[in-house]
Amino acid sequence: MTGADTNADAALVALDWGTTALRAYLLGGDGAVLDTRASAAGIMNLPAGGFDEAFDETCGAWLAGNAQLPVIAAGMVGSAQGWLEAPYIETPADAPALVNGIVKVKAANGATVHIVPGVLQAGAMPNVMRGEETQIFGALAGDAALESEPHGALIGLPGTHAKWAFVFGGRIERFYTFMTGETFGALRDHTILGRTMRANDQHDAEAFVRGVDTAKDAGHAGLLATIFSTRTLGLTGQLAPEQQPDYLSGLLIGHELRGLNEVLVREHSTLAGKTLRLIGNDALCERYRAALARFGCHDTKTVAQATERGLFRIAAQAGLVTSAARTS
Amino acid sequence: MTGADTNADAALVALDWGTTALRAYLLGGDGAVLDTRASAAGIMNLPAGGFDEAFDETCGAWLAGNAQLPVIAAGMVGSAQGWLEAPYIETPADAPALVNGIVKVKAANGATVHIVPGVLQAGAMPNVMRGEETQIFGALAGDAALESEPHGALIGLPGTHAKWAFVFGGRIERFYTFMTGETFGALRDHTILGRTMRANDQHDAEAFVRGVDTAKDAGHAGLLATIFSTRTLGLTGQLAPEQQPDYLSGLLIGHELRGLNEVLVREHSTLAGKTLRLIGNDALCERYRAALARFGCHDTKTVAQATERGLFRIAAQAGLVTSAARTS
Repeated sequence: MTGADTNADAALVALDWGTTALRAYLLGGDGAVLDTRASAAGIMNLPAGGFDEAFDETCGAWLAGNAQLPVIAAGMVGSAQGWLEAPYIETPADAPALVNGIVKVKAANGATVHIVPGVLQAGAMPNVMRGEETQIFGALAGDAALESEPHGALIGLPGTHAKWAFVFGGRIERFYTFMTGETFGALRDHTILGRTMRANDQHDAEAFVRGVDTAKDAGHAGLLATIFSTRTLGLTGQLAPEQQPDYLSGLLIGHELRGLNEVLVREHSTLAGKTLRLIGNDALCERYRAALARFGCHDTKTVAQATERGLFRIAAQAGLVTSAARTS
Repeated sequence: MTGADTNADAALVALDWGTTALRAYLLGGDGAVLDTRASAAGIMNLPAGGFDEAFDETCGAWLAGNAQLPVIAAGMVGSAQGWLEAPYIETPADAPALVNGIVKVKAANGATVHIVPGVLQAGAMPNVMRGEETQIFGALAGDAALESEPHGALIGLPGTHAKWAFVFGGRIERFYTFMTGETFGALRDHTILGRTMRANDQHDAEAFVRGVDTAKDAGHAGLLATIFSTRTLGLTGQLAPEQQPDYLSGLLIGHELRGLNEVLVREHSTLAGKTLRLIGNDALCERYRAALARFGCHDTKTVAQATERGLFRIAAQAGLVTSAARTS
């Protein structure tokens, strides 16, 4: 939907502005998505000082004649390399704390952009997120099953740097970052493991699950040991070249879940039987759901529209939109 | 030492011919090293059919006038991509089995090159080595402390693909491969972790040990989780850019040892208090010794000249040299 009718209902411009992409949503007073834009204008792809131009190119038409339309943004746009740094707030982090940490930048086209801060878990093993906190608050909205989990809700965000967050009483208590996606790429493209692989357009579910099971059942020696089996299973004729990428993907995701399960075990819980939610692209979440099932975890729905719902929810909490927030 | 005097005592030409380098030793009848040559003529650096020329360039002078001097070689020269494939022998593998698996290639300069096979551990998690088996037999020679270990000797070969071998009664029973060195390079050079690092010519022992301890004490979530702390400790001002390479190195070696210890624990043993030996370059072995000490393992000598001693020992066993083998 585009045009005059759409803009008349518009209540918020919401931006998911990350490292490699900018996704923009025009939202109505009830949080409904009226229009969307996507561009490759992630913060790493911009020339110095290029934020204003990228913002205007993407959202200028929505704001034309309505420069007072509130704008909210989350993600790396608030990092030290972003448009304006929004210093991290520390865990435990709830929505009011995120609202308090918002920084404002005045765009050249007259709009005021409200940038949501990221979250820092301080300590000897610090962790940081930017953008995921907003998705997490979007996922929580109205999910009764999740909020009633006795040990708090567990939310996974697969990706280049996968996050697993423990949320309790509306607060992000703590979280882990697994460099699963990026490590997969580095191993495939820059080690001997890639040399015997052949790319495969089709997802090989059997090879993937075999990798997951190897990490789960024989992963005690650790990832540095198990990954070599990608090569040796090939050398011994047990894994075809086109199966090796999905096997390695399964191995790495399996090690991530093995590690997550180890964290849970130390809290007298396990992945088996747990209720959790995933946020991310459908194909990747589907891989995680298949992998989680091998760990006995079957209640693993993927949350749709977590980003835009989270941005709307934080904007509502900040008083940027006056209509009732959409909660389901 | 070079020249006529040297060659008069020569009993064996011994080659350590790997992926990136060729090291050649001229050995006397007692196994003493009379002369050495090194070149970058590893099998990946050779043109097709380049083995004869590289061999003659490196060893031709030794063989001039004595084409009957026996020649033995170990390493990737015996792989499918090598001079002539020496099919793997399977674990448990002893010296007679290695001798039985030797293949011979007739060089253009008249010499006969005896290529030692690698070792395969078959099964659902196969493992392979080529060259390390020879170093292991070199390290075992005359090391009474090692041979008297009740659960067998444990020998580590740090490197790009680190090996840990369990040897009992003169047989390589089984072994593990940890892709520690290669994974370190891929993470440093091809992920976000490298972006905040500054190269450091000096080894930072404190940062290294901190990485080892992190893997040992907080590594239960796995390597994919702990490596991100290289970045977040930097972001929070706890780790300087020039400390980050050694911290990551410590983390990875720490995860390798954590995994090895997990293997031992399942056999009712531990790294703590264990006697083991290391084979490899001195600086790297020194890192491993420091890391092993954090796991309570202090009897960790580095074995000198394991390669040339192993080649001599297998040649003697094969009847290529008739003088008494040097055993200490």
